[in-house]
Amino acid sequence: MFDKFHEECGVVAIYGHPEAANVAYLGLYALQHRGQESAGLAVSDGKTIQCHKDMGHVADIFAPEVLGRLPGHMAIGHTRYSTAGDTVFRNAQPFAVTCNKGPLAVAHNGNLTNAAALRRALEAEGAIFQASSDTEVILHLVAHSRERSLADALREALLEIEGAYSLVFLAGNRMFIARDPHGFRPLAMGQLELSGGKVCYVFASETCAFDLIGAVYMCDVEPGEMVIIGPEGMHREHFAAPRNRAHCVFEHVYFSRPDSLVFGRSVQMSRENMGRLLAKAHPAPSAEFVVPVPDSGVSAAIGFAEEARIPFRQALIRNHYVGRTFIEPSQAIRDFGVKLKLNPVRYLLKGKSVVLVDDSIVRGTTSRKIVRMVRNAGAREVHLRISCPPTLSPCFYGVDTPTKRELIAANQSIEEIRRFVEADSLGYLPLALLRQSVDDDQRFEYCYACYTGDYPTEFVNIEELMGGKRD
Amino acid sequence: MFDKFHEECGVVAIYGHPEAANVAYLGLYALQHRGQESAGLAVSDGKTIQCHKDMGHVADIFAPEVLGRLPGHMAIGHTRYSTAGDTVFRNAQPFAVTCNKGPLAVAHNGNLTNAAALRRALEAEGAIFQASSDTEVILHLVAHSRERSLADALREALLEIEGAYSLVFLAGNRMFIARDPHGFRPLAMGQLELSGGKVCYVFASETCAFDLIGAVYMCDVEPGEMVIIGPEGMHREHFAAPRNRAHCVFEHVYFSRPDSLVFGRSVQMSRENMGRLLAKAHPAPSAEFVVPVPDSGVSAAIGFAEEARIPFRQALIRNHYVGRTFIEPSQAIRDFGVKLKLNPVRYLLKGKSVVLVDDSIVRGTTSRKIVRMVRNAGAREVHLRISCPPTLSPCFYGVDTPTKRELIAANQSIEEIRRFVEADSLGYLPLALLRQSVDDDQRFEYCYACYTGDYPTEFVNIEELMGGKRD
Amino acid sequence: MFDKFHEECGVVAIYGHPEAANVAYLGLYALQHRGQESAGLAVSDGKTIQCHKDMGHVADIFAPEVLGRLPGHMAIGHTRYSTAGDTVFRNAQPFAVTCNKGPLAVAHNGNLTNAAALRRALEAEGAIFQASSDTEVILHLVAHSRERSLADALREALLEIEGAYSLVFLAGNRMFIARDPHGFRPLAMGQLELSGGKVCYVFASETCAFDLIGAVYMCDVEPGEMVIIGPEGMHREHFAAPRNRAHCVFEHVYFSRPDSLVFGRSVQMSRENMGRLLAKAHPAPSAEFVVPVPDSGVSAAIGFAEEARIPFRQALIRNHYVGRTFIEPSQAIRDFGVKLKLNPVRYLLKGKSVVLVDDSIVRGTTSRKIVRMVRNAGAREVHLRISCPPTLSPCFYGVDTPTKRELIAANQSIEEIRRFVEADSLGYLPLALLRQSVDDDQRFEYCYACYTGDYPTEFVNIEELMGGKRD
Amino acid sequence: MFDKFHEECGVVAIYGHPEAANVAYLGLYALQHRGQESAGLAVSDGKTIQCHKDMGHVADIFAPEVLGRLPGHMAIGHTRYSTAGDTVFRNAQPFAVTCNKGPLAVAHNGNLTNAAALRRALEAEGAIFQASSDTEVILHLVAHSRERSLADALREALLEIEGAYSLVFLAGNRMFIARDPHGFRPLAMGQLELSGGKVCYVFASETCAFDLIGAVYMCDVEPGEMVIIGPEGMHREHFAAPRNRAHCVFEHVYFSRPDSLVFGRSVQMSRENMGRLLAKAHPAPSAEFVVPVPDSGVSAAIGFAEEARIPFRQALIRNHYVGRTFIEPSQAIRDFGVKLKLNPVRYLLKGKSVVLVDDSIVRGTTSRKIVRMVRNAGAREVHLRISCPPTLSPCFYGVDTPTKRELIAANQSIEEIRRFVEADSLGYLPLALLRQSVDDDQRFEYCYACYTGDYPTEFVNIEELMGGKRD
Repeated sequence: MFDKFHEECGVVAIYGHPEAANVAYLGLYALQHRGQESAGLAVSDGKTIQCHKDMGHVADIFAPEVLGRLPGHMAIGHTRYSTAGDTVFRNAQPFAVTCNKGPLAVAHNGNLTNAAALRRALEAEGAIFQASSDTEVILHLVAHSRERSLADALREALLEIEGAYSLVFLAGNRMFIARDPHGFRPLAMGQLELSGGKVCYVFASETCAFDLIGAVYMCDVEPGEMVIIGPEGMHREHFAAPRNRAHCVFEHVYFSRPDSLVFGRSVQMSRENMGRLLAKAHPAPSAEFVVPVPDSGVSAAIGFAEEARIPFRQALIRNHYVGRTFIEPSQAIRDFGVKLKLNPVRYLLKGKSVVLVDDSIVRGTTSRKIVRMVRNAGAREVHLRISCPPTLSPCFYGVDTPTKRELIAANQSIEEIRRFVEADSLGYLPLALLRQSVDDDQRFEYCYACYTGDYPTEFVNIEELMGGKRD
Repeated sequence: MFDKFHEECGVVAIYGHPEAANVAYLGLYALQHRGQESAGLAVSDGKTIQCHKDMGHVADIFAPEVLGRLPGHMAIGHTRYSTAGDTVFRNAQPFAVTCNKGPLAVAHNGNLTNAAALRRALEAEGAIFQASSDTEVILHLVAHSRERSLADALREALLEIEGAYSLVFLAGNRMFIARDPHGFRPLAMGQLELSGGKVCYVFASETCAFDLIGAVYMCDVEPGEMVIIGPEGMHREHFAAPRNRAHCVFEHVYFSRPDSLVFGRSVQMSRENMGRLLAKAHPAPSAEFVVPVPDSGVSAAIGFAEEARIPFRQALIRNHYVGRTFIEPSQAIRDFGVKLKLNPVRYLLKGKSVVLVDDSIVRGTTSRKIVRMVRNAGAREVHLRISCPPTLSPCFYGVDTPTKRELIAANQSIEEIRRFVEADSLGYLPLALLRQSVDDDQRFEYCYACYTGDYPTEFVNIEELMGGKRD
Repeated sequence: MFDKFHEECGVVAIYGHPEAANVAYLGLYALQHRGQESAGLAVSDGKTIQCHKDMGHVADIFAPEVLGRLPGHMAIGHTRYSTAGDTVFRNAQPFAVTCNKGPLAVAHNGNLTNAAALRRALEAEGAIFQASSDTEVILHLVAHSRERSLADALREALLEIEGAYSLVFLAGNRMFIARDPHGFRPLAMGQLELSGGKVCYVFASETCAFDLIGAVYMCDVEPGEMVIIGPEGMHREHFAAPRNRAHCVFEHVYFSRPDSLVFGRSVQMSRENMGRLLAKAHPAPSAEFVVPVPDSGVSAAIGFAEEARIPFRQALIRNHYVGRTFIEPSQAIRDFGVKLKLNPVRYLLKGKSVVLVDDSIVRGTTSRKIVRMVRNAGAREVHLRISCPPTLSPCFYGVDTPTKRELIAANQSIEEIRRFVEADSLGYLPLALLRQSVDDDQRFEYCYACYTGDYPTEFVNIEELMGGKRD
Repeated sequence: MFDKFHEECGVVAIYGHPEAANVAYLGLYALQHRGQESAGLAVSDGKTIQCHKDMGHVADIFAPEVLGRLPGHMAIGHTRYSTAGDTVFRNAQPFAVTCNKGPLAVAHNGNLTNAAALRRALEAEGAIFQASSDTEVILHLVAHSRERSLADALREALLEIEGAYSLVFLAGNRMFIARDPHGFRPLAMGQLELSGGKVCYVFASETCAFDLIGAVYMCDVEPGEMVIIGPEGMHREHFAAPRNRAHCVFEHVYFSRPDSLVFGRSVQMSRENMGRLLAKAHPAPSAEFVVPVPDSGVSAAIGFAEEARIPFRQALIRNHYVGRTFIEPSQAIRDFGVKLKLNPVRYLLKGKSVVLVDDSIVRGTTSRKIVRMVRNAGAREVHLRISCPPTLSPCFYGVDTPTKRELIAANQSIEEIRRFVEADSLGYLPLALLRQSVDDDQRFEYCYACYTGDYPTEFVNIEELMGGKRD
């Protein structure tokens, strides 16, 4: 409903817990903001893999009786956002199959940039695909590998795929965790101490999953690293030579929960930094209040308010009881869609000049509705501040973005955008200050391609990828 | 899941809109925080009343095809919270029946304090009740009235019932709106201008419903007032002599949405006042941050932070993707229930002294878990501040409260409570300052019975009412 | 789908079984041919009555977990056929209420001929009805009775109602069974011996229910009799003076299962008699085969074949996997509806002259389709024989019939009907022989009103009743 | 519930109807007796294949809105019986995939005897299977074929598979129909004339499907034949050299509907023949009635009665309202399972000597319950006659049979079986007379392996096949 970029997935993996399905379920529960369209778990008791997945929210899919039918000490889980067209059950993950390397399940966060070419080659050799997901390519590569062992076949497959991937694999009696050599998407490793001194290993896209299940964050799975855990213990190796790091900065700008560590760093801290530096770059001296666009604008607004010494006020209230379908009366209500989620507090806004802090502008239409809503509630001046640079380019590394043609900042100047959204002033966080916010101004470890168009990898076929973005 | 008092209902009524069901649905949508267990609509096209209600959330119950089967220009709606035992479909509202006064539907927010006695008398005369709700008593009083007209029968019935009620009635071709003489529960009236200069009348428990549907707040339905709207226009009258007003102060403390006007007054303003006066009454000079318990503690925390000149920080993050069923692993996680909803931001709390602002303590168990969570995340000191006085007495006017025995403040001193919740200090807003927060220190128009035990009405049978609270 | 009269209900009651709900469920299971639209059970453990009912088939409604939630040693059950318009959940039975005589549930097979007048009088006194069923009138009569005891109130109510009723009542700790003074609808009593020498009492519309649960048929509940069973044992009494008996003959012609005893008499025997006497009255000397219209025509066809010494052949096959919804291609198939249920065996019919035996003709349209189907499959001659007299008049005693205008035999001569159904000859069983088939040619204990228009009771308001048949 | 062999599937295919999905749905509707666990349709509009399948009955799966989403002029359908363990959605058919030969869907009746070996070989080459069905092997053979055209790849695949198969394939713009060289399972071809003189081609397992949709039977698809239908018309060819024919005789004994032509021959005629020859081989001179075990024993019983000149009587009534779950009271009812389906007519059986005619005895347990039921209902003598020879061997050609160990006739003499089922006499139809019944005593075109153990094909691995029968 809101005009935001969307994270396409969250993953979780558990090794060594007597109720692995329950723990993985809780991990998914904490990662639902990364995808609410479908969710799934694959569980192994050391021999057999069982998989359950469905469309919908985690808590609806995994009723107690369902979890009770998923016994085992190893589990992987996946939660998924899908764009409208392909919200089909067949693409829900994990994918669980039996092949010549034995039973195998996989869950994937990211996007393979050479999936279409690999798929064509595999199909020419006789492979039959179940669904349209790029993830399935990996399974076919493993099945077609001439390597005898699953580990070797996996290594071979990982060297063939390109792009962004944080992968968790479940085999009959062991688990494989891998992250692409650039480290686009996050993947954290943690430990959970069980009674009797045993240790359970936990992997998740964000550390908020560890907090819920009581695990402790240890480190990130490194870019280019594969972790193997089985009865013989844990083994870590680099399956690929190191490449330039390219952590997705948008995880810190918007996607991740503020209570998570992502790429080893507090998201809340990054966002408060963005707010403070935004206040320095684009102050709003005449403003009487700083108002966040909830929920994602709150952290930056607090930073902005503190730096600018302007009072912070919650003058937009968010309705959290939101369902799927809405009947808009034919005598339509003005700015209906935004009103379902946000409502202004007139008492606070009446006659005031306010700074509105949000995390991004995609098409500009939602921002305009919010500015109007604030002004109609009585605000005298509305100064819009965005806690990242203008969004210019689509993403091919696992984020659902509209085409370049739809991105307002790719087509209009900042002054034109200001006029479109009907704000009195508009300021974006400069790229240099965004780098400073995530402490990357010296290290160059993040990907900023959506703000710059400089993609950190080369593409086999950029037109095909662009087509996938429905340009 | 959280240990809070619960509002039992929200009501809405629409007269004069060609898609009355759709508009009433949107009104309920905005009032879901007042009850999420069941929802219903009754609609009339001037002749026939049709009713649809079910367990669950508003947006799940009213799919487009359901609303399409509810044609008419008049509608009433209800959303309901139920305590565990009686979450049964039979008690969902509106109640729609046909009796000797014609077709009639009713939706009710409040609680009748003489319902049991009236029910016994009606049953002795042969009345058969469908359900256990006190609301049904009103319908039987109307059916048993010897008055000929529905309006007269309603007046007679209203004079027999006692307690708290904001009622909306739908008859075949007109609508009746009534509020009890004390005005316990809110009920606002608004207008929506339609194309062609026509006016649609709208009634709702809170004005946030008006905002969503684009209506303008006009005034409150007055205590003791009945509004009749039909083909001949609107008529307002007082069916009962005025009595001392007794607006529920807890609407401003916790229930209502901060973006609503309730009893004609901004809820957000009241809450910020509570925070400011709380900071004056119980400052926390050593604290480095003010942290709200989201979402209901945010407004008071902002007021507190501003008055105390201590930085405001969002160090507890709320998970809004919450479902119904949870599987707690048998190797149970510490403070599991609270972790499902809240997670601390360690980076902010580590080594800090913080003021935690919440709106109430009921049993104390949740507060203790939250204090522990904050401390386990690294906080050095935790000072708990509550934006209302200690809660001492159950409510009989439409709020779901535990028994006196379960209310910690009814049984322990403030110092004992502080030790129980494991806070370094604890401060409640004094009653006098709560009155000042809602501007009632001169006017005496609010009910504070849950803080004082002084009930503004006499009871037929207090033991029976107490039994209803399962003491 | 087939053009038949419909039985409106089946009832069952169990007293003294530790798993009364399970046993009553099995009883309903055996009675599903008496109504498949909805089913319900009300169960008591001696104190509390619990009721579960729903639309659909018995086996779908009562899953094991549902039955597990219905503990008690007493149960009543109901299965119901509804005409299209009012197939609503609200009319499903049993009705369970609490009134001034305590908790009470009722299930009813039959139809009250003065229900509308009683309802108007009760509504004038303030009664609020939940649904449109005539059965609810009985509950309101009990609640409005000035008698103190439930038994007395029931006796009073039974004396006020007129028409056809086989009723089973469940109160908190006892059970009441009653049958109208004419004995229109069947109601049998049986016994089930439990381990330890205890006896369980069982009541059901037909004895096939006893066979499934292993009970033994004892006798019928007599017309005008009320049976009371409680902790003190069983008590039988006549609540009304004897009247002329009027057992529904159509139970033997079509409704009841052939394996049942109904009114103390084997249904199969009656039907074979009808077939034999039909062969005497209307032989078909040129025919080579006797072919039944399955399933209801089979028993009479066997009797006909034997008497006429013509071979019996199953040349029409019935498809028993029938669901609810069918998509007829727009290039419609000839006689589609009948083809879904019946298919001819061409090998048997080719070039043959056949006698087709069916149990009734209502509108004639289905019969015509069947005759055509047989002829299209190659039959040279089709002689149609009907095992009852022409159907002339609607029923007001619990059978769902079309209006007189729709009954072909009420409007056309037998020769006209023969031409309409396109048969080479047509013969109906004469009334005198139908009486002989059920051994009623001397006793005069059956109702033949649908064949004669002579109703055995007087009516308060025949126009209103006729209106109910949608004339 | 009954102890019978089970047919594993029925298939249907439609070419050239504007509403192909609707027509195929009706075809499946008529074939439900061949499998009620799952059903599916794949439809093509000449370009895109869409597939819908689910667990359950045909009429429940294909609601009007589902069929409305399946546009196209070509369709294939499948209805399936599954043994308990693998009743999983993944094995429901048709299988629809996209491979290097384009989009392809398949539905299969039969069983491939070399599927396991082929699957192992394909998996070794990297193939990933979705499910456990042998049918999927065919799709992988097509995808792995080096032939360029789909037709050539299909021919190649058909030459690799062994065993029983009646296959219908749907490609984007054409359809392929194939039957194994032995002709184990039936497959009939028909025509449906549409308005405008166009012809629609129809294929189905039995001709009863043609009757429902109004099509005319033309001929069988021949053993070893492939039919190709596309925009250019119909083409018939033999993909394999002729082999000895081996039509499944059990189709005539039990599986098929009596109103069908199967292998070009009336099933009803075969069954009446079996009954007549059974009466000659094993008369029962003392018997007063011939009683069929409904429904499958009826045709043979009619033949028996006629030949033996003993009256035919329907003394066992079948309850057709059967659901899935039953609650058996803990004070269990004797022979509960059989009672749910059958009930005796005591009036007919009392004191009589009867011949009971059934079509088969598998384990013997059900037969014993039925004999007891008849005797408990009063029969003096019970002579059991079975309209086929003793069942000795499991089937590997598409019929679900228990293991040899469970087949009573494989382990006990006829006298032992008679004692086990508690009959007064027992007679099976001799093999020679079964051959005569289907007119195969000269032609040798049927498979009688379940009665003889002489399998008409050689097996790659008989132990593996036996294991599949869970020995």
